[in-house]
Amino acid sequence: MSAYVPDPSRRNEHSRRAILDAALSLVGELGYDKVSIEAIARRAGCGKQTIYRWWSSKGAVVLEAATQSLNPVVVFPDTGDLVADLRAQLVDILELVTTTSFGAAYRGVIAAGQSEPDLLEAAYQQVVEPNIKGFSARAALAQQRGEIRADADVATLRDVLYGVIEYRIFHAMPLEPEHIDALLKLTFEGVR
Amino acid sequence: MSAYVPDPSRRNEHSRRAILDAALSLVGELGYDKVSIEAIARRAGCGKQTIYRWWSSKGAVVLEAATQSLNPVVVFPDTGDLVADLRAQLVDILELVTTTSFGAAYRGVIAAGQSEPDLLEAAYQQVVEPNIKGFSARAALAQQRGEIRADADVATLRDVLYGVIEYRIFHAMPLEPEHIDALLKLTFEGVR
Repeated sequence: MSAYVPDPSRRNEHSRRAILDAALSLVGELGYDKVSIEAIARRAGCGKQTIYRWWSSKGAVVLEAATQSLNPVVVFPDTGDLVADLRAQLVDILELVTTTSFGAAYRGVIAAGQSEPDLLEAAYQQVVEPNIKGFSARAALAQQRGEIRADADVATLRDVLYGVIEYRIFHAMPLEPEHIDALLKLTFEGVR
Repeated sequence: MSAYVPDPSRRNEHSRRAILDAALSLVGELGYDKVSIEAIARRAGCGKQTIYRWWSSKGAVVLEAATQSLNPVVVFPDTGDLVADLRAQLVDILELVTTTSFGAAYRGVIAAGQSEPDLLEAAYQQVVEPNIKGFSARAALAQQRGEIRADADVATLRDVLYGVIEYRIFHAMPLEPEHIDALLKLTFEGVR
């Protein structure tokens, strides 16, 4: 394609990126409830119609923005040491939550999802399901290698690790790497 | 006091009860977001001002209604078998969440609390803190008796049990007694 003819797909990609960045930064500054589609469009330098062409609601835009900022962080490392690998990934998530707008966006989406079942379902599909898949693959390797018991309940282990982090976020409890360490110690060793 | 003179404290108690019942049933029917103070007053047969005399906001009324329906259920039994006692209490909570309006009320309050820090703090003080106290007392007995290790991390155990239940509620995942059993097995035995 000639350099003199604008590439519409590239222009679209530029607009999409600007909208997602605007959504994430506004939610970080104002909180999810105070952000409107109008404000996102204004900051992204586009019209409301451009946003509605790609997303059905504010929740859908903010969810996609949150998912894109989460994606680079939720890879499962494999150093052969499951506890170390989980700790590395969980601490990365914790830093994303506490130091970027991701935390406000995710809290806003899940809160709004309590009265918007489609949004809650979309958040499950875009955030929770991929994590379940990645976690299960890494845990299956760990079971083959004997890092954890062959009959260990990895589905419940996943629920516990990510569930407790969300619980502490939603109740605005402190969330530090020491909480990750305590969680891994408890789930690997048990209390009995 | 003569039976012919109305007792104002009893009349107040009757109004308070009617308001809390109205709030809980309306949230169960319509969802938290669709319920207004006006609607609660109408169903309770009182004026809005009566509600505002005792509570500062819709969130505060619904939180008190939720807390009152939770209180009879969150006692910690002590049969000498910690796993059985926790299972009994957690299954009671699960039934309250899935079969009464408590679930909708609690989801609504915590969701609204993401943009109302005072409400989130009140929910922590009225629901989470008493549970931490009760759980800690029961767990301390279990440690003295050797039901769990003397150095077991009971604060993290509590976070895990209640955190995962909330996580499953907030993501609208299924919540059955079998999830409680899996959670207790994992936390007591560990995966390694």
